[in-house]
Amino acid sequence: MSDRVINFGAGPSALPEEVLTEACKGLLNFQNTGIGIAEISHRSADFNRYIREVEENMRTLLQLPQDYKVLFAQGGGTAQFSAVVLNMLARYRSRGGTAEKPAMDYIVTGSWSEKAMKEAKRLGLGDVNVIVNTQTIADDGKKTFNHIPDHDSYKNKFSQDPALIYYCVNETVDGVEFNDDLESPTSFPFDSLPDGAPLVADYSSSFMSRPIPYIDKHAVIYAGAQKNIGPAGLTIIIVRDEWANVSDNSIPLCLSYKALVDSRSLYNTPPVLSIYITGLVLRRMLEIGAQNGRPREKALEYYGERTVQKASKVNAALKEGEARGIFKGKVLEGSGSKMNVVFDVVGGEDKLKEFVSGAEQRGMKGLKGHRSVGGVRVSLYNAVTEDQVDKLIQYMNQFM
Amino acid sequence: MSDRVINFGAGPSALPEEVLTEACKGLLNFQNTGIGIAEISHRSADFNRYIREVEENMRTLLQLPQDYKVLFAQGGGTAQFSAVVLNMLARYRSRGGTAEKPAMDYIVTGSWSEKAMKEAKRLGLGDVNVIVNTQTIADDGKKTFNHIPDHDSYKNKFSQDPALIYYCVNETVDGVEFNDDLESPTSFPFDSLPDGAPLVADYSSSFMSRPIPYIDKHAVIYAGAQKNIGPAGLTIIIVRDEWANVSDNSIPLCLSYKALVDSRSLYNTPPVLSIYITGLVLRRMLEIGAQNGRPREKALEYYGERTVQKASKVNAALKEGEARGIFKGKVLEGSGSKMNVVFDVVGGEDKLKEFVSGAEQRGMKGLKGHRSVGGVRVSLYNAVTEDQVDKLIQYMNQFM
Repeated sequence: MSDRVINFGAGPSALPEEVLTEACKGLLNFQNTGIGIAEISHRSADFNRYIREVEENMRTLLQLPQDYKVLFAQGGGTAQFSAVVLNMLARYRSRGGTAEKPAMDYIVTGSWSEKAMKEAKRLGLGDVNVIVNTQTIADDGKKTFNHIPDHDSYKNKFSQDPALIYYCVNETVDGVEFNDDLESPTSFPFDSLPDGAPLVADYSSSFMSRPIPYIDKHAVIYAGAQKNIGPAGLTIIIVRDEWANVSDNSIPLCLSYKALVDSRSLYNTPPVLSIYITGLVLRRMLEIGAQNGRPREKALEYYGERTVQKASKVNAALKEGEARGIFKGKVLEGSGSKMNVVFDVVGGEDKLKEFVSGAEQRGMKGLKGHRSVGGVRVSLYNAVTEDQVDKLIQYMNQFM
Repeated sequence: MSDRVINFGAGPSALPEEVLTEACKGLLNFQNTGIGIAEISHRSADFNRYIREVEENMRTLLQLPQDYKVLFAQGGGTAQFSAVVLNMLARYRSRGGTAEKPAMDYIVTGSWSEKAMKEAKRLGLGDVNVIVNTQTIADDGKKTFNHIPDHDSYKNKFSQDPALIYYCVNETVDGVEFNDDLESPTSFPFDSLPDGAPLVADYSSSFMSRPIPYIDKHAVIYAGAQKNIGPAGLTIIIVRDEWANVSDNSIPLCLSYKALVDSRSLYNTPPVLSIYITGLVLRRMLEIGAQNGRPREKALEYYGERTVQKASKVNAALKEGEARGIFKGKVLEGSGSKMNVVFDVVGGEDKLKEFVSGAEQRGMKGLKGHRSVGGVRVSLYNAVTEDQVDKLIQYMNQFM
């Protein structure tokens, strides 16, 4: 029997046990080369075949249009906060933009988009335009991000000819997420954007939990692997050709999309081990899709259904707890994340501790909210199973 | 019996089998947390203790002075090519330097220092001064780097008040290396530098193969982990306090030494898995040192002795081969790398292929030279054992 606990952590986060067991074999001997995956040359034919398969599987799962590239980079979201500014500004200039400080539109709906916006401001290369910032003051006097804004509140505020328009699909810390359903007022207002708008999305926590709606409205989508698909140390960048083919000497090579495109992500040694495990996760997603009757190109829809199902279950238990005065959701109706459900335990720190330690005694870890906001956070990434969610709900009911 | 081959690859490269076996346990369950190392929060107490141990062990092994920080970053040498320029220029300005384009001195002895120099030129932020470039034309008409220059050829050419002075200790592609013995003419001319000179060393391939001579002459030493101590995806930066405490808005956050210092390398999610395996390798180095009668602070000396021993054996066989007209060394006497011994097989491509495929048949892989220079390259990183080296030499003798 496994000595592993249930991991509701927000990232790095749970990976499928089967993948980890398989990865152990690869660590010692990658595909019968007699060399472990962490020891093999990134220039070897074996690894090259592998990384191309990872790319292909990602393209298939996402149903990625041909004019987008998939890039594998290092540095996480933090590196991309800077990289998107530098690469999008280069593109702005290359297409004839002449503003000395081009407009850069940021939609701030939580801690991560706020960090991205602050990095853009700090770099000082453009005119950062926060077209909406949803931060409010909660009942307890603390600052909080608790909702996705209504289209009407910002859809007319986009700059004329911005170098980039930035949003974060899912805010891991705050538990708010744009709705995939365009009819919903908490979706992203794609309709309001002109064709070819330089839209950048941080997809980190949602990436590969479900299909990406309106991929073709985006210039750049990026995601850290360490939520749904792999270990930390790997960042996936999906970039449309016209934004990828700009070389600019002001961009440090490690942040240049063009350097990654030209080398097919092998300019220098990539994070081989993280790419390997991510590749195993993607293979497994295709297999599990097939086991559930989905062709390869529909496998991600299957995961999307599971995602909705798991979040619905937790939210139902939360609602019940709210009705009984035990729990208190932190996020407004319609804005809740399907990846990270956040709530408070009524009764202060002691009650919160009681809830978290009770969960740990029952083999469930990672439920503490982000240090900046406190409370409970239930992360429901792909590797968290419905059975595990059921166990949590059973405990939530017991606790009530 | 293990199905693993002998791996003489240049990086990513061999790791100790014992470490990989141990890492498998950690992949599934890190230190009895019930959570695998690739799945655990980098903010958890368990991981924080671990990363501090990795740092401490590195400090002990290197006998690092107190006024140096150890930082864990992503992006490899390529990211550091840019990072050193940005951080050293920031330091230059913070101490009152006023040149619009400060001098940056580069010592070019091979492919990697050349790349670093080109990145500095490309960024265009300083006046790149190549004070020596050892590239020559080989007998076959190809460009080659085949030696470490004599002190006299450049020790008086350092700029007045440079923002940085850059060298690469060991050139992995070309197989040349600065000598640790200051008496040797192929050592680095530390004596010629004024106190506090902003000396930067790329230590990637040599890092942890032996003690670093004259650490305290350096402002920055950096190394990719994927040679002697771990998987790709982790870069170690050792930086003296006065160069680490400069904040400058022009530096992308992911490349800022100060951001790493202030957060103790935990500004954002670090490459947890690579740090973990590196930590296991360092623990093992201390153990093996102890097994060979060395106290912790002398363990790296033991590795240094092994390094010298392994390289001497291969070089002796190479000499023998040269005498018999079978092999031909590519590097001038006194400049040879102890990490990467490079040579040609006399008789052209067919003979080379015969040598490499014969080795593969005998379970020895990774002997092909870098695609830019061809020939044979024998990499002798820490995880390559003396027994394995003996097996190669036996084969070299057979081949003769």
